[in-house]
Amino acid sequence: MARATLDETTSNSKFEAAIESSGFRNLVTGLIIINAIILGILTYEDSLSPQTVWSLEVMDRAITFAFAFEILLKLAVYRLSFFKLGWNWFDFIVVGISLIPGGTGFSVLRALRVLRVLRLLHIVPMMRRITEALLKALPGMGAIMAVLALLTYVYAVMATNMYGRTDNPEVAQLFGDLPSSAFSLFQVMTMDGWRFEVVQKVIDDGHPYAPLFFLTFIFIASFAVLNLFIALIVEALAEEQKAATEELIDEIEEDVEQAEEERDEMMGLLKELKAEMAELKVSLKRDVSRD
Amino acid sequence: MARATLDETTSNSKFEAAIESSGFRNLVTGLIIINAIILGILTYEDSLSPQTVWSLEVMDRAITFAFAFEILLKLAVYRLSFFKLGWNWFDFIVVGISLIPGGTGFSVLRALRVLRVLRLLHIVPMMRRITEALLKALPGMGAIMAVLALLTYVYAVMATNMYGRTDNPEVAQLFGDLPSSAFSLFQVMTMDGWRFEVVQKVIDDGHPYAPLFFLTFIFIASFAVLNLFIALIVEALAEEQKAATEELIDEIEEDVEQAEEERDEMMGLLKELKAEMAELKVSLKRDVSRD
Amino acid sequence: MARATLDETTSNSKFEAAIESSGFRNLVTGLIIINAIILGILTYEDSLSPQTVWSLEVMDRAITFAFAFEILLKLAVYRLSFFKLGWNWFDFIVVGISLIPGGTGFSVLRALRVLRVLRLLHIVPMMRRITEALLKALPGMGAIMAVLALLTYVYAVMATNMYGRTDNPEVAQLFGDLPSSAFSLFQVMTMDGWRFEVVQKVIDDGHPYAPLFFLTFIFIASFAVLNLFIALIVEALAEEQKAATEELIDEIEEDVEQAEEERDEMMGLLKELKAEMAELKVSLKRDVSRD
Amino acid sequence: MARATLDETTSNSKFEAAIESSGFRNLVTGLIIINAIILGILTYEDSLSPQTVWSLEVMDRAITFAFAFEILLKLAVYRLSFFKLGWNWFDFIVVGISLIPGGTGFSVLRALRVLRVLRLLHIVPMMRRITEALLKALPGMGAIMAVLALLTYVYAVMATNMYGRTDNPEVAQLFGDLPSSAFSLFQVMTMDGWRFEVVQKVIDDGHPYAPLFFLTFIFIASFAVLNLFIALIVEALAEEQKAATEELIDEIEEDVEQAEEERDEMMGLLKELKAEMAELKVSLKRDVSRD
Repeated sequence: MARATLDETTSNSKFEAAIESSGFRNLVTGLIIINAIILGILTYEDSLSPQTVWSLEVMDRAITFAFAFEILLKLAVYRLSFFKLGWNWFDFIVVGISLIPGGTGFSVLRALRVLRVLRLLHIVPMMRRITEALLKALPGMGAIMAVLALLTYVYAVMATNMYGRTDNPEVAQLFGDLPSSAFSLFQVMTMDGWRFEVVQKVIDDGHPYAPLFFLTFIFIASFAVLNLFIALIVEALAEEQKAATEELIDEIEEDVEQAEEERDEMMGLLKELKAEMAELKVSLKRDVSRD
Repeated sequence: MARATLDETTSNSKFEAAIESSGFRNLVTGLIIINAIILGILTYEDSLSPQTVWSLEVMDRAITFAFAFEILLKLAVYRLSFFKLGWNWFDFIVVGISLIPGGTGFSVLRALRVLRVLRLLHIVPMMRRITEALLKALPGMGAIMAVLALLTYVYAVMATNMYGRTDNPEVAQLFGDLPSSAFSLFQVMTMDGWRFEVVQKVIDDGHPYAPLFFLTFIFIASFAVLNLFIALIVEALAEEQKAATEELIDEIEEDVEQAEEERDEMMGLLKELKAEMAELKVSLKRDVSRD
Repeated sequence: MARATLDETTSNSKFEAAIESSGFRNLVTGLIIINAIILGILTYEDSLSPQTVWSLEVMDRAITFAFAFEILLKLAVYRLSFFKLGWNWFDFIVVGISLIPGGTGFSVLRALRVLRVLRLLHIVPMMRRITEALLKALPGMGAIMAVLALLTYVYAVMATNMYGRTDNPEVAQLFGDLPSSAFSLFQVMTMDGWRFEVVQKVIDDGHPYAPLFFLTFIFIASFAVLNLFIALIVEALAEEQKAATEELIDEIEEDVEQAEEERDEMMGLLKELKAEMAELKVSLKRDVSRD
Repeated sequence: MARATLDETTSNSKFEAAIESSGFRNLVTGLIIINAIILGILTYEDSLSPQTVWSLEVMDRAITFAFAFEILLKLAVYRLSFFKLGWNWFDFIVVGISLIPGGTGFSVLRALRVLRVLRLLHIVPMMRRITEALLKALPGMGAIMAVLALLTYVYAVMATNMYGRTDNPEVAQLFGDLPSSAFSLFQVMTMDGWRFEVVQKVIDDGHPYAPLFFLTFIFIASFAVLNLFIALIVEALAEEQKAATEELIDEIEEDVEQAEEERDEMMGLLKELKAEMAELKVSLKRDVSRD
């Protein structure tokens, strides 16, 4: 939709035709894949010769500038409507990150440059479909995620108050402060090592009723996650169902309209018959009276 | 429904209008969120200055009294019908807990006061919808949960009898008494560390055939949980299906009624035609006989 | 169905009416629950006084004989058709187990007597519905379970050959013989500690490519389990769908039949009209010729 | 389909009839099962007498040659169209592997010979149906698997850059190079020991914000896997839905056609009536004018 708007406002642009051509897209796709491979090889930096690393870094730099140029081109063509499309923001940010001068040596920014490879998610049509379907399913999860977050917050406050004030370093690591408690409860929710890595340690720290606390959390959270899951399935299927119902209604409507037309035709014939019958009667009466 | 009843019995109350207004609800929502933040900060009690802790405790106390006042207001307005609504019981209990004098120092009651924050679950409309949907799904799980509980009980009795009488403290911790056995079987059901934390310890304690016991439990319990899950999905979808079927039947009914009316009209015309034909015949006969 | 057959062959029996009465069923249900509680308390045998244990054992014995008497009663009433009902076999076996003289001291038979409690599964109607629904879903899983079993067998033979011949006791415990390998692969399939308890140990034992072996197994087995799950959901929903389709077809059929009848009536009227018209013409011709 | 083509091109062949007969299939099924048992017993090679091992190896060899002969027979009958069927390729490869001379002693090829047993998957009709259903569901997973693979690659490059350069051998084992990182991220995705075996080790190695990195991965990956699952369910159900819709449309079509025919008949009668009416009028006028 945003794309349609862009098309309208900037039509007749040769540049736009070039940017939107499949040739240009294949070129960009190719560059991203080469970039992904370069960044993969660069994780073996320590085993490579300095020359190899240097050449790979130069190639990465060149591809980054090519992406920056691509974005500038799009900005020149679409101007402010460039920012109407979420994916363009995505490109702008992931390419922009790599252009921030990061100082010498290793930095988080250098680690983040591989995010550029995620541009494939919207440039390859097959992946774009999947990614947009996933993004579309997100809002339907909002309310239940809020309920789960609230539940985890309340249990985390309780766990920190009840279990966090301890000299046992293992239990302090688990429930010593609010973020740790929330993290530990998330671990329990994923059912990973919940018994011996979490609950048993709390029991052994002098809380024999801890299983009650954690079992209620497991039951409530699992039940909420289960229903989140069911809601997504039902939503997806309701669309199918709706489409099927509409197809059937269209089919019925069509048949009904045809039947209606035919009945109208029959009704017309009947009325004509009646009119002729009336005429016949009149003419007969006239004959008779003329007699 | 209970709410509808309340509305009818206590209509014309200015207080009620105020209590049910969105302004009042937003005020309560705001107080709960502030309360949640205060209780979150208070988990860092040990790193805060005594003055800060004191002020936060005072604010928490003030909000508790505000909630108590809100409930008294509702009690004054709705009187006994206040207790017809489950959510009001919930508010009454979670606010009441905080008003019980808990003695000095830390207590479980103090830890439970954060439950007040769960009031958001029914005060924020979006969360209320989700929570009520979750509560509505519960009864459908009753029978299968009863089967699972019975199964766990039977296996727990067997496990305690077969594996609990041991000198190995690890196995005694797992299956030493009935509640421990039930807890360990629940752990096996969640598939968390079931092999090396549970089954292998029992095998090493001299029960080479323990895997048979646990594998049958895993299979039966997983199968029951799976079917619990499927039952919930099918129930949710059956509603969608029913709605679609009813929509179609309505559509068909409408078309059929219209067709029926049109056929009735045609039938009417045909009968008139027949009557006129009969009349015509009679008049012709009369003519002929008059000739 | 089998029950219907029984009813027909043994009708008019007062005993049968008594056995099938809800009073009798409630009595049996009550005895089973008391028995369940007794067997639960008996797991604390070591902490109870010998007198208490002795009384509980006597009560358990008495209830066992009551159940045996119940079965004999049913056998007397239904004779050989008693064995047509699967649940009767179940009762016969679980009660029979407890009547086998088990020698002195503890034995597996003594542990198995709690299986009698599972009789609730078919005596409480709510549980019976669930249990029979679960049993009905089993055959639909047969083929895919056979595929999974075959897959596990093939992988277990390969794993035993490749990893079992080792001096490392941990790896020997995992893959030393065929049943151990199958058990370890089942553990991998449940995703419980698959990496550090299984795969990493095999890698460290000199098999750097073990991850490939286990990852293919995880992918294939997960995919098969997933499809097993989907097949059960689809089967359950297809029934709902079929019911909905049939309801719609019935609805349409009914409307169509009514429309058909009405059209038949109209056709009849038209034919009569035509006949009268023909008659009219003939009579007119006669008139004319008579003129 | 490929089978149909084969049948056409090689019809009238006695050999083909023999190969496709159920007798022949049962013989092959029997040989595979015997072979599976032999290969199972051979995993106990070290506890068997050399004579037993020798006889079993001879039997395995004989069955391998029987399978090779079966494939040669099929090649002789179907010639090049043999290779049009994927399952024939499968047989050709798994039997071929066992015929490669493997030198003395143990080898991977010897371990792979048990793959022959997987021939059951397409020879037993019940298993063939399941296997083909599973294979048919694969392409629908392609796009989402590609998205998951891309995501894992990007996160693996980041993890290797951020956490891999360490002196801690445990963290180096987890994220020391790209394949290890991808493997560790897959472990996190399966939620097996993700906290204490992976995330906590990275935190303890000086990365306090590692939970953010892993939690985003867990959320995105779980969400994608969930949607993969939902897509498969919806696809399977959409087919059921489509079949139901088509059944209904057929039903409606049939009824509509019958109604149409009847209305056509009525229309014909009406037209005849009108024609006769016109004729009547004309004859009446003629009579009158003749008068």
